[in-house]
Amino acid sequence: MLIVKKFGGTSVGNPDRIMKIAARCIEDYSRGDDVVVVLSAMDQTTDELIDLAHKVNEKPPKRELDMLLATGEQVSAAMMAMAMDRLGVRAVSLNAFQVPMHTTSRYGSARLKRIDTDRIMHELEDRKIVIVTGFQGVNKYDDFTTLGRGGSDTTAVALAASLHADACEIYTDVDGVYTADPRICPKARKLPEITYDEMLDLSTLGAGVLHNRSVEMAKKYEVRLIVRSSLNRSEGTIVEERVNVEKMLISGVALDKSADRISVIGLRDEPGVAFKLFDVLAKANINIDVILQSIGRDGLKDISFTVSDDDADDAMQLLQDSQTRLHYRDLSINKEVAKLSIVGAGMMSNPGVAAKMFEALYNEDININMISTSEIRVTVLISERDGERAVNAVHDAFGLGEE
Amino acid sequence: MLIVKKFGGTSVGNPDRIMKIAARCIEDYSRGDDVVVVLSAMDQTTDELIDLAHKVNEKPPKRELDMLLATGEQVSAAMMAMAMDRLGVRAVSLNAFQVPMHTTSRYGSARLKRIDTDRIMHELEDRKIVIVTGFQGVNKYDDFTTLGRGGSDTTAVALAASLHADACEIYTDVDGVYTADPRICPKARKLPEITYDEMLDLSTLGAGVLHNRSVEMAKKYEVRLIVRSSLNRSEGTIVEERVNVEKMLISGVALDKSADRISVIGLRDEPGVAFKLFDVLAKANINIDVILQSIGRDGLKDISFTVSDDDADDAMQLLQDSQTRLHYRDLSINKEVAKLSIVGAGMMSNPGVAAKMFEALYNEDININMISTSEIRVTVLISERDGERAVNAVHDAFGLGEE
Repeated sequence: MLIVKKFGGTSVGNPDRIMKIAARCIEDYSRGDDVVVVLSAMDQTTDELIDLAHKVNEKPPKRELDMLLATGEQVSAAMMAMAMDRLGVRAVSLNAFQVPMHTTSRYGSARLKRIDTDRIMHELEDRKIVIVTGFQGVNKYDDFTTLGRGGSDTTAVALAASLHADACEIYTDVDGVYTADPRICPKARKLPEITYDEMLDLSTLGAGVLHNRSVEMAKKYEVRLIVRSSLNRSEGTIVEERVNVEKMLISGVALDKSADRISVIGLRDEPGVAFKLFDVLAKANINIDVILQSIGRDGLKDISFTVSDDDADDAMQLLQDSQTRLHYRDLSINKEVAKLSIVGAGMMSNPGVAAKMFEALYNEDININMISTSEIRVTVLISERDGERAVNAVHDAFGLGEE
Repeated sequence: MLIVKKFGGTSVGNPDRIMKIAARCIEDYSRGDDVVVVLSAMDQTTDELIDLAHKVNEKPPKRELDMLLATGEQVSAAMMAMAMDRLGVRAVSLNAFQVPMHTTSRYGSARLKRIDTDRIMHELEDRKIVIVTGFQGVNKYDDFTTLGRGGSDTTAVALAASLHADACEIYTDVDGVYTADPRICPKARKLPEITYDEMLDLSTLGAGVLHNRSVEMAKKYEVRLIVRSSLNRSEGTIVEERVNVEKMLISGVALDKSADRISVIGLRDEPGVAFKLFDVLAKANINIDVILQSIGRDGLKDISFTVSDDDADDAMQLLQDSQTRLHYRDLSINKEVAKLSIVGAGMMSNPGVAAKMFEALYNEDININMISTSEIRVTVLISERDGERAVNAVHDAFGLGEE
């Protein structure tokens, strides 16, 4: 078996933790498996490096920022190799140049293009544990790039795909994917398995275990992903193409409090209005989400949509600046909203899932603002203060807490 | 003009200093010169990384230690490029892979083999300041190596040679090479120029401004070296093949307190004894220095020699372990000795230089233990407590303090 194991910054946050992770990786290696370890920078390192950069330049050139940040994973990778050597196992650390991991040119948010696996295969044949720096790559100019958010997960999945690994284990501080956030839903249960699509919807909805890019790539190359804890021996959750969907109608309930609702009031009810509105935001790279358009009346209509907290101020500013061009009467924002979603491949063949969700919310006297659905997801916008009550009500209604 | 400028760890020790160095490099650049900057890791960084490594492995594999240490210069190089960008000048940082700097395979003490200058030349043609990581290289396995002590100086000189630079400026915390250590000899005077060979002898004798490897390389490739201060605008000292030797008989007086004298008493007075003795030490990579052998009497002789403080304990241990094989009667060590040297290309054609030195010491009632000479150097071993007095006496005798 060839296994790729990815550990985040917390897992390698100090020398003690590095020793623990080293010991854990060696267990699989000693059973005869080939082991490739992908590491993030040690906890805090990336933030500290960014702070350091800002001391000489508040807007550092991205090429140089990536050059600086790339040192973070190189430190943790070398440390891990030393820890394994101490435990008597031969290991070798490789940075993006040494693999090499080819990416697009775009500094700060490069995409992986191609991984040369020769050196890794050679080191594995030599019975070494291979430790690869996550998050970083090399572009066609022979410069370091970084992959942006969720970069190390992406590195791990891409390596697993290129090496035709039997599994890609993503170690986190939770022990798998849950039917709901256990911090707000006491009955939440760990899922033994979940489909790529469900995982994608859950990631988007802020369940936060895996970054979407890595799940998309895993789906595309059919990499068997396993989400598990670096702190305990729990089995984790397997993300695969096909799981036993008949067992469960839906897989989980997700709550995203980071959504804000922006309402544009009194737009002209004529063709092209929605296009113009969203084009302004799209050009500024602002993702909009649930959209609701009122039925036109007196030649006017309203459009509401959600954006993430991070983008809300920018979006409001852009819309204010465009008032003359967009011809609207009024603009408002509501930050006290939350998105509640149910996700499940099983709902495709089961009508009435949405109705059941709405009923559960009605029984709790929770008002629904907006609704959006996909094949395997139903999302409603509710008031933020109702969020936790809503999660539990829906979780109960679908019997997610039961084995 | 193409100028290579090398700055040590202290010069780039914090963001403020990096900004200052950046501004200074930009001055030359703005005059139209092509500028290549070689940097060490920020002050303390290398030590901190070694400490970190020791927390997981007291004897870290050298390959991984070099992988870890190589991040130090990458951080300072990226920071410098950001600082220059802030000051409105285009700069690009390059690590050993990006240059690339090819070295021998030996981790921790690699030797530079070849530098590809294509990328650097290309960036210079593009009117960028090129910042290169000192101290590190890449070996034939595509692994990071480090060059050991004085590594960044060596990187700078090798780059200057490969790029056919007009000068290689080594910035330090002193403003040049002095006729004696100004801390112990108040009349010491900065030398405007000095030959490679004189500089080599001074380096060996602990004057400590430049590492010998870099001076040897500068001599071999006729690189015009300039030692100057990163703190002030002083002219510095030029190290070249030929200087106006007639002006001065000797260039400087050096005192090395780190020498210890080991005496091996009662060796058999027969061929091969000295060979056997020094072979034991050579095999352990211990450098021995001034050697004195007594005239044999009663079939026995004594051999004394100096070693550096660092090697003294190892040398004593080795000799004790070899007593049966070497057949000596007694072994002693004196740590209270110092080496006093005068260095000067001018003494080659001037007999009586050594006599003048001995006279100066005699006048001060300073006893000479051992004597060793080369073409451009006279070294005597004296008591450590006489050291500073001896330096001043000899400095005066040769009139070194006078213009």
